[in-house]
Amino acid sequence: MINKLMSKIEKMNSPVVVGLDPMLSYIPEHITKKAYAEFGETLEGAGEAIWQFNKGIIDTTYDIIPAVKPQIAMYEQFGIEGLKAFKKTVDYAKSKDLVVIGDIKRGDIGSTSQAYAVGHVGTVTVGSKTYVPFDEDFVTVNPYLGTDGVKPFVDVCKETNKGIFVLVKTSNPSSGEFQDQLVDGRPLYELVGEQVAKWGEEHMGDNYSYVGAVVGATYPEMGKVLRKIMPKTLILVPGYGAQGGKASDLAPYFNEDGLGAIVNSSRGIICAYKQEAYSKFGAENYADASRAAVEFMIKDITENI
Amino acid sequence: MINKLMSKIEKMNSPVVVGLDPMLSYIPEHITKKAYAEFGETLEGAGEAIWQFNKGIIDTTYDIIPAVKPQIAMYEQFGIEGLKAFKKTVDYAKSKDLVVIGDIKRGDIGSTSQAYAVGHVGTVTVGSKTYVPFDEDFVTVNPYLGTDGVKPFVDVCKETNKGIFVLVKTSNPSSGEFQDQLVDGRPLYELVGEQVAKWGEEHMGDNYSYVGAVVGATYPEMGKVLRKIMPKTLILVPGYGAQGGKASDLAPYFNEDGLGAIVNSSRGIICAYKQEAYSKFGAENYADASRAAVEFMIKDITENI
Repeated sequence: MINKLMSKIEKMNSPVVVGLDPMLSYIPEHITKKAYAEFGETLEGAGEAIWQFNKGIIDTTYDIIPAVKPQIAMYEQFGIEGLKAFKKTVDYAKSKDLVVIGDIKRGDIGSTSQAYAVGHVGTVTVGSKTYVPFDEDFVTVNPYLGTDGVKPFVDVCKETNKGIFVLVKTSNPSSGEFQDQLVDGRPLYELVGEQVAKWGEEHMGDNYSYVGAVVGATYPEMGKVLRKIMPKTLILVPGYGAQGGKASDLAPYFNEDGLGAIVNSSRGIICAYKQEAYSKFGAENYADASRAAVEFMIKDITENI
Repeated sequence: MINKLMSKIEKMNSPVVVGLDPMLSYIPEHITKKAYAEFGETLEGAGEAIWQFNKGIIDTTYDIIPAVKPQIAMYEQFGIEGLKAFKKTVDYAKSKDLVVIGDIKRGDIGSTSQAYAVGHVGTVTVGSKTYVPFDEDFVTVNPYLGTDGVKPFVDVCKETNKGIFVLVKTSNPSSGEFQDQLVDGRPLYELVGEQVAKWGEEHMGDNYSYVGAVVGATYPEMGKVLRKIMPKTLILVPGYGAQGGKASDLAPYFNEDGLGAIVNSSRGIICAYKQEAYSKFGAENYADASRAAVEFMIKDITENI
């Protein structure tokens, strides 16, 4: 799966992932109206609106992006019905040959981490039958519990040729509170980065590891150091656009082969129709606005790295 | 809700929480057989087996324990159907007046953490209607992303009088990899503990805060220090029993009022019927074995603190 992802990035010249993180307030009225007419103003209605919204964006962008990253929290907030919309989104994106990164930020210990891994990137056995529950290609993992929390994901991924992205340095303002604390003169995130590189050795693709890292676009100096610490690691970079990360800051996240990073934008793409620059599309054509925003983002990034 | 939890602990003299973390291999054959007969060897069948298993344990223990802690990973591994069993378990436990701690270890940033909070301990709005998706009373939260990741949970909990337990020092062997790293001569988990105490000031109950902490039973020396750093914090202590934590190690986690900690056991209780000590009950009466194991655990802990 890491080879597929790298090859798609290279062929499309598109180191871009679209974050499918829909809030109800992002969804044009014609979609919510239709969903509520059918299912009422219910959790099911919300799930339907989210799913239809996502489908529109996938349909207009799948041929120019290698991957999508649904943020599960945005679905989980609507309970079971929201999670059904998550699953539909994952399945539909895969049917369009997109690589799906489940942004789930799970992490626990031993058999518990294994259960998350099984549910999202593995298979689960019931009696004599085997099932593939959520079926993402990659998931994001929180490292706070150490190797015990990460290793079960790697083990499951080895069996399924799937992968993970471990949080190293997140894009948010308070990420430094713990991640930047100096340990023997070096920030904690560097230690985490070293472990990511080590975990990654156990599950290598052709050129990059199945164990990737999350490093926010908002900290390019740190990205530069982490790029060196984790040379074989694909870096998933959130924080471009709405969170303030600029394309000119992104060069350090890439390797000399022009690869090694994939940049996420969520709001900037899925809510493009609400921006001045894309307002001509109108809410009805929100998905075309998203495509235009993706095209701009690809150009912006590839010209600057 | 923190006042209710503290009052239940005190009245029952039972600082014990039962971890409802069912693996299919834990469930007696008469339950799985019946579930598979009705729903087949499917994810739905697995969900039904888990739910019936949990129901049995809740029915035999609810009058002697203040709370249960379902571990969501064990349900999520069966996809949507597993999560339906999680929701049924939460609802049933609440109908028996148990406090429900959702062990979800979520944590993200800003609106994403808020979405998790809304989904698990808050309410979500669809059009003009409001819903309560998963409806736990407390959830566990991962602090790696700093205040941005925790604060949205606290804000939602303020509105709903619910609470969280923040991971400070986990019970697993590799928890030290990052959590024990020295920052200015002090381990990282102490810094996290200080933040927990600070976050907790913003949402206080009568004597304890709605912001609790997770500190593993397997590290009593660290528990002692953290107890002092977080005097108003209820400590959720995993790792008793199956993970190796002993009752004699637990005293430092409690305050002088005899309160301040609640000790979790999962496998040791829900799989009691498989232990030599409770084998006389047999698989048919697994839930009675669980009650006997809870009674032993309460005695073991209250006599040693």
